[in-house]
Amino acid sequence: MVRAGIVGATGYAGAELVRILSGHPDVELTVLTSRQYAGEKFDKIYPSMAGIVDLICEKLSIDSFCERTDVVFIALPHKVAMEIVPEFIRRDKKVIDLSADFRFKDVLLYEAFYQEHTAADLLDKAVYGLCEIYFDKIKSANLIGNPGCYPTSVILPLVPLIKSSFLDINSIIADSKSGVSGAGRSLSLTAHFCEANESFKAYKVSAHRHQPEMEEVLSIEAGRPVNMTFVPHLVPMTRGMLTTIYANLVKEVSSEEIQNCIDSFYSERFFVRICKEGRMPDTLHVKGTNFCDIGFKLDERNNRIILISAIDNLVKGASGQAVQNMNILLGLDETAGLTNVPFSL
Amino acid sequence: MVRAGIVGATGYAGAELVRILSGHPDVELTVLTSRQYAGEKFDKIYPSMAGIVDLICEKLSIDSFCERTDVVFIALPHKVAMEIVPEFIRRDKKVIDLSADFRFKDVLLYEAFYQEHTAADLLDKAVYGLCEIYFDKIKSANLIGNPGCYPTSVILPLVPLIKSSFLDINSIIADSKSGVSGAGRSLSLTAHFCEANESFKAYKVSAHRHQPEMEEVLSIEAGRPVNMTFVPHLVPMTRGMLTTIYANLVKEVSSEEIQNCIDSFYSERFFVRICKEGRMPDTLHVKGTNFCDIGFKLDERNNRIILISAIDNLVKGASGQAVQNMNILLGLDETAGLTNVPFSL
Amino acid sequence: MVRAGIVGATGYAGAELVRILSGHPDVELTVLTSRQYAGEKFDKIYPSMAGIVDLICEKLSIDSFCERTDVVFIALPHKVAMEIVPEFIRRDKKVIDLSADFRFKDVLLYEAFYQEHTAADLLDKAVYGLCEIYFDKIKSANLIGNPGCYPTSVILPLVPLIKSSFLDINSIIADSKSGVSGAGRSLSLTAHFCEANESFKAYKVSAHRHQPEMEEVLSIEAGRPVNMTFVPHLVPMTRGMLTTIYANLVKEVSSEEIQNCIDSFYSERFFVRICKEGRMPDTLHVKGTNFCDIGFKLDERNNRIILISAIDNLVKGASGQAVQNMNILLGLDETAGLTNVPFSL
Amino acid sequence: MVRAGIVGATGYAGAELVRILSGHPDVELTVLTSRQYAGEKFDKIYPSMAGIVDLICEKLSIDSFCERTDVVFIALPHKVAMEIVPEFIRRDKKVIDLSADFRFKDVLLYEAFYQEHTAADLLDKAVYGLCEIYFDKIKSANLIGNPGCYPTSVILPLVPLIKSSFLDINSIIADSKSGVSGAGRSLSLTAHFCEANESFKAYKVSAHRHQPEMEEVLSIEAGRPVNMTFVPHLVPMTRGMLTTIYANLVKEVSSEEIQNCIDSFYSERFFVRICKEGRMPDTLHVKGTNFCDIGFKLDERNNRIILISAIDNLVKGASGQAVQNMNILLGLDETAGLTNVPFSL
Repeated sequence: MVRAGIVGATGYAGAELVRILSGHPDVELTVLTSRQYAGEKFDKIYPSMAGIVDLICEKLSIDSFCERTDVVFIALPHKVAMEIVPEFIRRDKKVIDLSADFRFKDVLLYEAFYQEHTAADLLDKAVYGLCEIYFDKIKSANLIGNPGCYPTSVILPLVPLIKSSFLDINSIIADSKSGVSGAGRSLSLTAHFCEANESFKAYKVSAHRHQPEMEEVLSIEAGRPVNMTFVPHLVPMTRGMLTTIYANLVKEVSSEEIQNCIDSFYSERFFVRICKEGRMPDTLHVKGTNFCDIGFKLDERNNRIILISAIDNLVKGASGQAVQNMNILLGLDETAGLTNVPFSL
Repeated sequence: MVRAGIVGATGYAGAELVRILSGHPDVELTVLTSRQYAGEKFDKIYPSMAGIVDLICEKLSIDSFCERTDVVFIALPHKVAMEIVPEFIRRDKKVIDLSADFRFKDVLLYEAFYQEHTAADLLDKAVYGLCEIYFDKIKSANLIGNPGCYPTSVILPLVPLIKSSFLDINSIIADSKSGVSGAGRSLSLTAHFCEANESFKAYKVSAHRHQPEMEEVLSIEAGRPVNMTFVPHLVPMTRGMLTTIYANLVKEVSSEEIQNCIDSFYSERFFVRICKEGRMPDTLHVKGTNFCDIGFKLDERNNRIILISAIDNLVKGASGQAVQNMNILLGLDETAGLTNVPFSL
Repeated sequence: MVRAGIVGATGYAGAELVRILSGHPDVELTVLTSRQYAGEKFDKIYPSMAGIVDLICEKLSIDSFCERTDVVFIALPHKVAMEIVPEFIRRDKKVIDLSADFRFKDVLLYEAFYQEHTAADLLDKAVYGLCEIYFDKIKSANLIGNPGCYPTSVILPLVPLIKSSFLDINSIIADSKSGVSGAGRSLSLTAHFCEANESFKAYKVSAHRHQPEMEEVLSIEAGRPVNMTFVPHLVPMTRGMLTTIYANLVKEVSSEEIQNCIDSFYSERFFVRICKEGRMPDTLHVKGTNFCDIGFKLDERNNRIILISAIDNLVKGASGQAVQNMNILLGLDETAGLTNVPFSL
Repeated sequence: MVRAGIVGATGYAGAELVRILSGHPDVELTVLTSRQYAGEKFDKIYPSMAGIVDLICEKLSIDSFCERTDVVFIALPHKVAMEIVPEFIRRDKKVIDLSADFRFKDVLLYEAFYQEHTAADLLDKAVYGLCEIYFDKIKSANLIGNPGCYPTSVILPLVPLIKSSFLDINSIIADSKSGVSGAGRSLSLTAHFCEANESFKAYKVSAHRHQPEMEEVLSIEAGRPVNMTFVPHLVPMTRGMLTTIYANLVKEVSSEEIQNCIDSFYSERFFVRICKEGRMPDTLHVKGTNFCDIGFKLDERNNRIILISAIDNLVKGASGQAVQNMNILLGLDETAGLTNVPFSL
């Protein structure tokens, strides 16, 4: 059994890691840390886990943590993450970091949108953990920068078409819609029930920090700079993210060619499901799962493609993908612990 | 007092007309018809109206209806509407039709997306009731084709910029999101609680019948054909519609110029509110009201504009605009009966 | 025009007062205060009110406030309210206080559940503003203790039956369910979207401070002490409160007798609607309105009655009733400004 | 591997069985039937199951069904169920019936609330599948009448106290609240999104058919007739059921005694979790799980107890309990396939 610990276990991403790992056949959860709840039983903060997880939240002590774990999940805010990740790497731990701190290749890009990077020497060694795209690199990684939820939902449907040179890469527009759990467990008016319920709105219009992240990855895949437009919106539901992508085609292409392009690109990847027969993804169909559902429609009149992806922002968009990364880098079955059957509703 | 009757009063658009007209200072509601509920008190079907509206639903008898009304609202499905509208026009009634039947100028366009038109001779006389754009024509109209909800939310933010020749009109993409009440009161899996709740999805992708309606109006305003991409989505909430529009700019233009363009275009129009200081519309802020809130953001890197509008799909997107049309064509204050104060939440 | 001011205008009860009073035909809103938002336009905090209310939030200055107002609404937390209410009374203002501070007759009861009362001399002069029960006293009141939402929903259905001596008053159980807006605008995990959404739970079981309030009033009406059981629950919706009351009958009584008893008790009261023909109240039918809908069912096998009431917790349960109190004490039509037509949905 | 088939696989209870059984370590799902969707792939009706379940829905042919299955789940409406259950029993299949048809011991009671029973001879052999209460009987059963959701949530918290003779069994009142999925997949205005959303209401007040079911079981456990009052309500959420029970105590008893009574009664039962330290159940904490959480509070002033239970109506209230029954009667681990980790949110 692999011994796993979670730093920052009581935020939503951390608690989702607890949920998934507590049911993982090859993993024993051994340490949970929480500044706010140190000394309290985890199931007091998340009573849903009573009878399932019996751990007590601890303050982080890196040496003690490392003695009891083989793999480390960091579910802290950016900046706090990069302060401790080097300590774990130095102690030869496998680290999967859910913050933004190790997602970028270009430190200047990171610093332009976040802050000074204090562990920039690790960026080279870190692997961007978008499993379906960087599967091989992940296998031998020691440090994973686990992708953001929006980038996951934007990059997965785009890469096959970008690789096939179907798209005018300067025409990409991504219109994303996220459930409220993306705002986390920290209190805010945005996530206050009466403000979010029965409300739909855009936020950080063309100014969200996930945009440079997705642009960097798309640029690498395209082999030249991709500048896109990205607008996130908030949906009055707990879980789920749907992204609608618009892009101009550079040549005439049929629906069958598109379908084949995406199908073949993901033919070996269990967690990407391509919709058939004009069906479109629905966040309800991926709730609680690590799937990314992808559908598309050709707008032939305008020679434009519409791509739609759906994920559970807390699973494939965060903690599920983190566990998928762990599975890959430890040589386990990629799907281990992640085949919880989806809710039908 | 103007005597008003509603044909089809027990669907959601009809009931919303009842709600608004029952509080209108210059209107007396005199006749409500309903095939399904003929003979029953209206407040038995909508108990919220108990103590407010005391009418009994009737089967439609056109002569009797006309004797007791000055103005007629038709809240029936398309096709059924065009079968009876000529009867009312023949009897010199002012008619406001909420179906699609009298929204098109081009009968072939209508017939391509709906069915054969059996009252095509009236299309010329009908006025498209988008009040802020066709105010003057509405004043002298006898037959109003009340706009669809999506077209209202798409056309209002676009017209000022199209008129100012800021936009590449072949680059327009509208990504709309609607509350479930848009699906009406007819039962369907789409509007079944457990299928819509905690779900977000696109539907009729690039295939919705409101698209030719908005394209016809935009083409008229632009003076040349506008082909756009339109994708509607379903939001798990009852009321509200938000549309995010993307378009390339044909010249360099500043935020101030955009702001001035829209502000001045709508300076005299009470029901359009332009957001200031980078604030963005939220459907919660227009719930239950006839307002259309508009915000925008320049994506300077891509020389693209992002326009966002919010309406209540049942009010400005249907019954509120219908009453606004009535006010205008009867020479009443445009806002009469429509200044119900919005919910703060 | 009556000049009205609101102390604490930016909480949910305060904002709901703004909403209602801004549409009141006999009132001019002249002053809004807010500690947190002093200096900011009200419509910046509540953008729904843009174009409707043009006031700027101020810090409270009692003298200046009094110069510009005839009637004062206090929408502050308890304790803070009783610190300033005497100042307004001293300046001969009519005061309607939405906190708990002036709802109790028995200062010891108040102090047992809240804290020391620093303006206890005013309790005698204060009138409990449950309009349908204390209409006559309210007419000549200077200080209104506006009822809590739960007490309103519990007392209104019970009083007619208690007055008729139908009930075993030691058997009363009230099981109440409230929308999340009852928790106010202050941030808390309880009102955090992801914790409240798709969740139903009881809270403060048999320990809520509204219980002594309702027991005091029911005891006065019964002429002897009423001890009841009260359990509030939280419903994943914004507005609405439904209370289900169970009580044993002390004699055999028919449904007709019950119906007549309640009907006749409230025959003159516009805002109480008695359901007919076995229909039961639904919070949806009172949303945004000042109505209290009441239904009942005899459980003949157990000689027990089940009473059900529905209100909008922010309107009849708070700000709407406050305005109703103002109307009564100023001699205006009881319904002025409160006939906003209810949402059908 | 046990071969399992589901008759009526496309309703919500059937689909939930598919979800649970497809992840069961000892079960192979071999047959799904559906009248409405015969010939279609199951994952076309429930796209969430794409990649997980590859079966095609069939019309029911009993012989063919029996050849391919060891255990049969019937997820049909009552009446339809009793028409086919005898056929499966005759063929020596183990049958778990989710309808009401085999829940009653007293055929007259069944017939008073449903209709004539056409397989009454099987009632004696059928075991009421409330696992925590009838564990031993279930072990040797061939036919299980799987309990209703409301009875499960009402009986589990009551039995320990009834067995301990703490309660006045004529004073029991159960106030239940259910998510909308309880209304099933059949279309109805009740389950229409805009009617259920932002709405809370009681229905079938003291007239629900689950009441005689719970009374029969409680009477058997009490050893004398139990007449109770039962009122179900509808909560605007998909999954979850909370029941608040009120009962008078026949003697003075401390919280510790109550806690001990319930704790010891369920000490061996994994799926009942007793809340500690005054915490109360929340439907969110059992969502997607087979747990029943129970909490209580003594109302000492009135010598009354308040019991609260929470279940997922589709899992412990239907399909999860059905699988638990299968596990028990096949001699498998009671929790097999049912330890899916609960959602934290």
